[in-house]
Amino acid sequence: MASRAMNVILRSHLSTSSRIGCAARINKNISTNESSPIVSKFSVSELADKVAFCRCWLSSKFPKCDGSHVKHNTATGDNVGPVVVEKPKK
Amino acid sequence: MASRAMNVILRSHLSTSSRIGCAARINKNISTNESSPIVSKFSVSELADKVAFCRCWLSSKFPKCDGSHVKHNTATGDNVGPVVVEKPKK
Repeated sequence: MASRAMNVILRSHLSTSSRIGCAARINKNISTNESSPIVSKFSVSELADKVAFCRCWLSSKFPKCDGSHVKHNTATGDNVGPVVVEKPKK
Repeated sequence: MASRAMNVILRSHLSTSSRIGCAARINKNISTNESSPIVSKFSVSELADKVAFCRCWLSSKFPKCDGSHVKHNTATGDNVGPVVVEKPKK
């Protein structure tokens, strides 16, 4: 009986937290000790002809995308991807 | 006794989930019904002289930044901010 009650409480908590998501940080890897917002600045002139910027905060090449969002999306049901900036072909 | 056991289990679960973060989606607002990754593509020629791209997935101007990361950072202890692309001054 006690065990069933515990299960109900736990299941209720888990389903609520996965439904509303967690008010958790989304950056768990990049300069986590830094308190000011991480802003990545680029001049167009220093960019490659096509560049993808990470928006999942999991890339080992941050601020560039390394495809880590694919694993994150599979694990969580998310659908995040990079922002891509391309220079016009000459 | 049963109640104490429940408390121990719940506390243990909660402390674990807040320590490791939640394996939750980070995009809770933008085209959440779309299953393929959201990739935002821009040609440099269509960009303003300075543009900030949202990386917190909370901007009402997504994929542009509207400063929503500030509220998110305050609420969660996170430190996320936009990627900024600037055209060289002529």
